[in-house]
Amino acid sequence: MKFTINRDLFLSNLNDVSKAMSNKPQQPVSSGIKIEVKRDSIFMSATNAEIAIQAIIPVTSQLVIEEEGVVVLPGKYLLDIVKKSEAKDILVTRFESNVVKIVAGRSEITMNPLDVEAFPFINFDRNGVELSIDALNLKQIIKKTVFAASTQNEQLILMGVNVVTDGNKLEVVATDTRVLVKKHLIFPTEFEKISVIFPSKSLDDLNKILDDSEEIVNINISSTKAVFSFKNISFRTRLIKGAFPNVDPIIPHEFITKIKFNKQDLMATIERASLFITQADENIIKFALNKDGNVLISSINNQIGSVEEIIKPISCTDIVPFQTSFGYVYLLNAIKALDSNEVTISFAGEIRPFVLTGEYDINYIQLIVPVKI
Amino acid sequence: MKFTINRDLFLSNLNDVSKAMSNKPQQPVSSGIKIEVKRDSIFMSATNAEIAIQAIIPVTSQLVIEEEGVVVLPGKYLLDIVKKSEAKDILVTRFESNVVKIVAGRSEITMNPLDVEAFPFINFDRNGVELSIDALNLKQIIKKTVFAASTQNEQLILMGVNVVTDGNKLEVVATDTRVLVKKHLIFPTEFEKISVIFPSKSLDDLNKILDDSEEIVNINISSTKAVFSFKNISFRTRLIKGAFPNVDPIIPHEFITKIKFNKQDLMATIERASLFITQADENIIKFALNKDGNVLISSINNQIGSVEEIIKPISCTDIVPFQTSFGYVYLLNAIKALDSNEVTISFAGEIRPFVLTGEYDINYIQLIVPVKI
Repeated sequence: MKFTINRDLFLSNLNDVSKAMSNKPQQPVSSGIKIEVKRDSIFMSATNAEIAIQAIIPVTSQLVIEEEGVVVLPGKYLLDIVKKSEAKDILVTRFESNVVKIVAGRSEITMNPLDVEAFPFINFDRNGVELSIDALNLKQIIKKTVFAASTQNEQLILMGVNVVTDGNKLEVVATDTRVLVKKHLIFPTEFEKISVIFPSKSLDDLNKILDDSEEIVNINISSTKAVFSFKNISFRTRLIKGAFPNVDPIIPHEFITKIKFNKQDLMATIERASLFITQADENIIKFALNKDGNVLISSINNQIGSVEEIIKPISCTDIVPFQTSFGYVYLLNAIKALDSNEVTISFAGEIRPFVLTGEYDINYIQLIVPVKI
Repeated sequence: MKFTINRDLFLSNLNDVSKAMSNKPQQPVSSGIKIEVKRDSIFMSATNAEIAIQAIIPVTSQLVIEEEGVVVLPGKYLLDIVKKSEAKDILVTRFESNVVKIVAGRSEITMNPLDVEAFPFINFDRNGVELSIDALNLKQIIKKTVFAASTQNEQLILMGVNVVTDGNKLEVVATDTRVLVKKHLIFPTEFEKISVIFPSKSLDDLNKILDDSEEIVNINISSTKAVFSFKNISFRTRLIKGAFPNVDPIIPHEFITKIKFNKQDLMATIERASLFITQADENIIKFALNKDGNVLISSINNQIGSVEEIIKPISCTDIVPFQTSFGYVYLLNAIKALDSNEVTISFAGEIRPFVLTGEYDINYIQLIVPVKI
């Protein structure tokens, strides 16, 4: 096996593929990157229990293949070598003895490969339903939904993001029962009907290697897995089995008041009002609409003390004094996912879920469930 | 107790004083900042087992004192409050009930004070020998020496930095037996004769609150402590008791060759040559002068592989082929502490300590002890 590749091209592909390496591998080979050198292209891949990523690099002026072959190299170290190199081109050779030699400028590196036979077979077959969506919209959907999914292993299904198509509508829902987000997009053409649950962690990983571009991402969905194809990359994730709960009944449609805030002002106020909240607490802040139309945000830590701050909303449809309590981190994360400068919070009652919307955040609602104190 | 203080003035003084707060306090009060409000100034202080810091803020247009008093507040939370505040002025009041109220713009904060009686008495008396040095030179000395001190609790004396005066010469030495640095400064006036050991951690902390200015720092040294005075700050550290070893006999003066490198080039080469070194190893790289006058730097990790790189020095006084091995982290840290663009390494033999110097690093030598393999 022998090839010479442009250093920057090698690095960007290793960076993409390495997102599927295990950080805490059960077997050494799971921390490896497999490099398959064929007659006219190189296949690089890595995999962990959730996802697998493959990059195909064709022969060009930036890649010269002299001899075919296959090898699995320790991914972290290979990536470090290429990252630190100042060389223009990198020569990789595997000898009969199975030793791999890398020549990068003045550096000569010898690497002991991992066991190729132990590297799992990865199936990137595209034998399911096909969807297409541009990278920009896909990144937006991921950014606006994954943060709301559960991180608790006991809530297996809620660790996923539910994607449902209906005609030309694609709807995405995530919830951990305390916070809920729902986003939909309307497309010019109709989709085949699907309802699947993507692991939210997988979508997070996918987001890291998607460019901010209008390039089309093809998504092939079968019963147990999905394969995302874009640029020279295939990204596979397993799907979560099971039925995602129907969340529509808990979304309120009648409200006692709607209060509009400047987003930055509200965030700064919540950050100050929560300064005494330590991890040991339940992260609860109190939100009260006063008779004068101002809002009081406060929190108490019995040991340290209390903080309260008055914030003047931009507007308030009905001044009905009430108060509600909830986890402030949910509210901060929800606000951060909004692209609007103003955020409207619609309240249905003191212990009813409330709804966040933003004028520039079309077809997107967020819902937070108060806690009873 | 009641005062109103400009937010920026409060923050910068809290920042300075907080460097002496304990991160992992044995008692809650050790994480506190003591605020003593007197008729015409405020004294703020914090302390841990090694150091104590006090800031004195006099009454000005930025500080109005309405009522005297004393309180100890949880330092981290007080600092957070002031840091996050957008208010111009901050009003602090302690009520009869012992509760402290802080009003900062729209925020109203109530804090439970810590026990004033439990806060240790800190003696900032200046009853010893007095030295003066400008902040810029003091920062340089600290930067160029503390990194070489030991971090091993078993080597108590070597966890300190030895400062010795002799006439108008001030000499500073630090070593952990593997690396040694020695720096001296010549002053226009003579010093009183002293030889003391400062805890290197204390000098690190001091460095964080010293400005890059030519302002004079007065250092008052008694048998067990030193007090640094500058701006409105007093910084006290305990001293390490004992006799610092005489390091002069181990510094070689005759060399088999002197090799001069470009500093950046040498650093990049060492960083690449050490990429496979994991923490489990002894951090050893090999350094060999070849017959052609080039230097080969290499390391081996039996599991992963090996890296070797040829570096061409700027010059080499004698081409005497030899090789030596040492901890690469020592060499990297030593090179980073140099201000010169070129670094000269003078070798006295394969297993003899070698010496690093830089053309712009006057009166400063660094010495690294090779390991036998």
